[in-house]
Amino acid sequence: MVLPFDILEYHQRIKGTKERMAEKGIDVLLITDPANMNYLSGYDAWSFYVHQMLVVIIDEPQPIWIGRYQDANGARATTWIYEENVIAYPDYYVHSDTYHPMDFIAEILTQIGQGRRSIGVEMDHYYFTGMALERLKKGMPNAQFKDASLLVNRVRMVKSDQEIEYMNRAATIADLAMTRGVESICAGRRECDTAAEIYYQLIKGTPEHGGEYPAIVPLLPTGDHTSIPHLTWSDRPFVDGSPVIVELAGCYKRYHVPLARTVAIGEPSQKLEFLAPVVLEGIQNVLEAAKPGMTCSDLEAIWAKSIKKYGFEKESRLGYSVGLNYPPDWGEHTASIRKGDMTVLQPNMTFHLIPGLWFDYDGIEISETFRVTEKGCERFTTYPQELIVKRESSILLNSSDQIS
Amino acid sequence: MVLPFDILEYHQRIKGTKERMAEKGIDVLLITDPANMNYLSGYDAWSFYVHQMLVVIIDEPQPIWIGRYQDANGARATTWIYEENVIAYPDYYVHSDTYHPMDFIAEILTQIGQGRRSIGVEMDHYYFTGMALERLKKGMPNAQFKDASLLVNRVRMVKSDQEIEYMNRAATIADLAMTRGVESICAGRRECDTAAEIYYQLIKGTPEHGGEYPAIVPLLPTGDHTSIPHLTWSDRPFVDGSPVIVELAGCYKRYHVPLARTVAIGEPSQKLEFLAPVVLEGIQNVLEAAKPGMTCSDLEAIWAKSIKKYGFEKESRLGYSVGLNYPPDWGEHTASIRKGDMTVLQPNMTFHLIPGLWFDYDGIEISETFRVTEKGCERFTTYPQELIVKRESSILLNSSDQIS
Repeated sequence: MVLPFDILEYHQRIKGTKERMAEKGIDVLLITDPANMNYLSGYDAWSFYVHQMLVVIIDEPQPIWIGRYQDANGARATTWIYEENVIAYPDYYVHSDTYHPMDFIAEILTQIGQGRRSIGVEMDHYYFTGMALERLKKGMPNAQFKDASLLVNRVRMVKSDQEIEYMNRAATIADLAMTRGVESICAGRRECDTAAEIYYQLIKGTPEHGGEYPAIVPLLPTGDHTSIPHLTWSDRPFVDGSPVIVELAGCYKRYHVPLARTVAIGEPSQKLEFLAPVVLEGIQNVLEAAKPGMTCSDLEAIWAKSIKKYGFEKESRLGYSVGLNYPPDWGEHTASIRKGDMTVLQPNMTFHLIPGLWFDYDGIEISETFRVTEKGCERFTTYPQELIVKRESSILLNSSDQIS
Repeated sequence: MVLPFDILEYHQRIKGTKERMAEKGIDVLLITDPANMNYLSGYDAWSFYVHQMLVVIIDEPQPIWIGRYQDANGARATTWIYEENVIAYPDYYVHSDTYHPMDFIAEILTQIGQGRRSIGVEMDHYYFTGMALERLKKGMPNAQFKDASLLVNRVRMVKSDQEIEYMNRAATIADLAMTRGVESICAGRRECDTAAEIYYQLIKGTPEHGGEYPAIVPLLPTGDHTSIPHLTWSDRPFVDGSPVIVELAGCYKRYHVPLARTVAIGEPSQKLEFLAPVVLEGIQNVLEAAKPGMTCSDLEAIWAKSIKKYGFEKESRLGYSVGLNYPPDWGEHTASIRKGDMTVLQPNMTFHLIPGLWFDYDGIEISETFRVTEKGCERFTTYPQELIVKRESSILLNSSDQIS
């Protein structure tokens, strides 16, 4: 088995996690977020649709993986955890009215002497349900439960050089997928055909590095749906004169580099032509200013000032910390680039800066993922930072079935 | 706006939901499962990575959609809900340490006079977190909370003719994607290249009907990883003499038809050649027997008897109810085809029969999605039901960049 990181890097991550556990008075951390499970153990499989968990005990060197019986081989194949720390529950616990995996887990934890300790749970993370919380509490009546939401996510914020290298590979894939997707957009071709081209490239990756599934599917709102950032594609054809927003992320070893661009099919509207330079100038101003020591709130202020000159305000956040993740989100949920977020930028923090402007009937998105460096910041991708105008007005014959 | 179903079908679904609410003494149902939100309202967007909800009040004709401000246009664009029933929370509630969307929602529900009623929540569904439960309880101290897990899912189990039609379209896409994926598998080509081909076809769909993202990515375990059903692809090349399991689903209007096959690259192992007829006979026996009035447990008994002749037992379940869904699962979590599941088959129930056999170092999966008919059952897909043997032993020159 080849782990994506040196074993020492995993030990370092466990150490950072235990330090935060100690600060919060948590003895036993129950990790159900698949990204956090992966970060600490290497575990990587599409098994988060059933209950599973990584347990970090403050005075034990190795975490414990607990999951479904048929997934235990996955823990053996993808983690650095010793065999005796891989514990499986029988299949009759899966999607059952009677049995719940958290009953099993509570019993195991009690058996190994953790039933009376201070237990941290990821209260507001995906895949940790209200029922999971109640069954754990019922099964460990003498434990003290604490909210450990984002505890591991905060350890994840500053990336190692190896993590940055994986993000660089993801960036190359993002650039290629954006190129392929934009090439395929033209009036008369269907949205799903462009989504297929993007997906093909995202997964194929490069000859050296294959791609992985992104935590969010490519988003492709078009026409008046550009006012709705999270609509996915349809099988309707693109229309001449319409805008299309393409938001995608390259993914490598579960590390994401998102990238968004806005494409005008045919002549861009006057509004788009007016908005694009406003957004581009704002992005430029933020990227030129970002450096260690500034806060996320400072970055927002720079953007707000930049667009205010043109009479705009933006209510929604401007970006967020990004990296390792699983569906349904590639954001890390720690720092947001918005007013009042006092997170201080440090070298090797990574953000997706996505200053979308959405109105009632249209919108624009141009984004960059950047890394904070020692003295400033740098973009991951190289795709041209501009409003893209596709003046071809119809499909080239047969081109929808060609892969260039 | 064109809804995927007639407005009367949505009314029927609401009616079925309210009947079950009444049976359980639930006045107000808080729906956070994206599939259930879609089923009742039409809402379709990749916005389930933030908290959102559909509220069904037993004595109100229309449900209420509550979500993030920038997603409210999505509710207007994809649902039959009137404008005044679309309620948005401000962006500072998103991924915040201070504000939680459930505080906002509890306040809204209290304001509209629901604060002292019996409230059903989907306790064990994805995206309903432990924190969501606690904040709702805190915000509505005079309400009585009840578990409404699977309430709407049970309404979903028997499909309408229109739903079956969408599943037929998904089946066509599944067949095409399996064909394309299997064609691309050969020694020396990378797993990610085959995954890219499969994804391309899944999303492109047919000329008439574009495909959508499946709720689970294509699974492609190979070699000794065929013992691990939920590993995703890597960028390693396929190896001559290895087995590959391909599990995928076509998706149309969020309706899924899954399909799995096992492929031998080069000569199949003796074990695979022995296992394949055992699994195929078992599937055949189940499909020949399945009809209205039987229980899921009856189907399991037929399978168990069929494989026992050859000395096998299978601990994990044999299949599950399938249809409308969002990541991370296409299963409906209601009926499982396993011992003791007393769900009675009815016409237009739909199941994924996936009798995988997994051992320590290998495994086999051959599956069929079927619909219960008036007198028996029928498969959705037409892909040959067999162990697939690919005897070509190496890559055709350049073929990895061709799309046939």
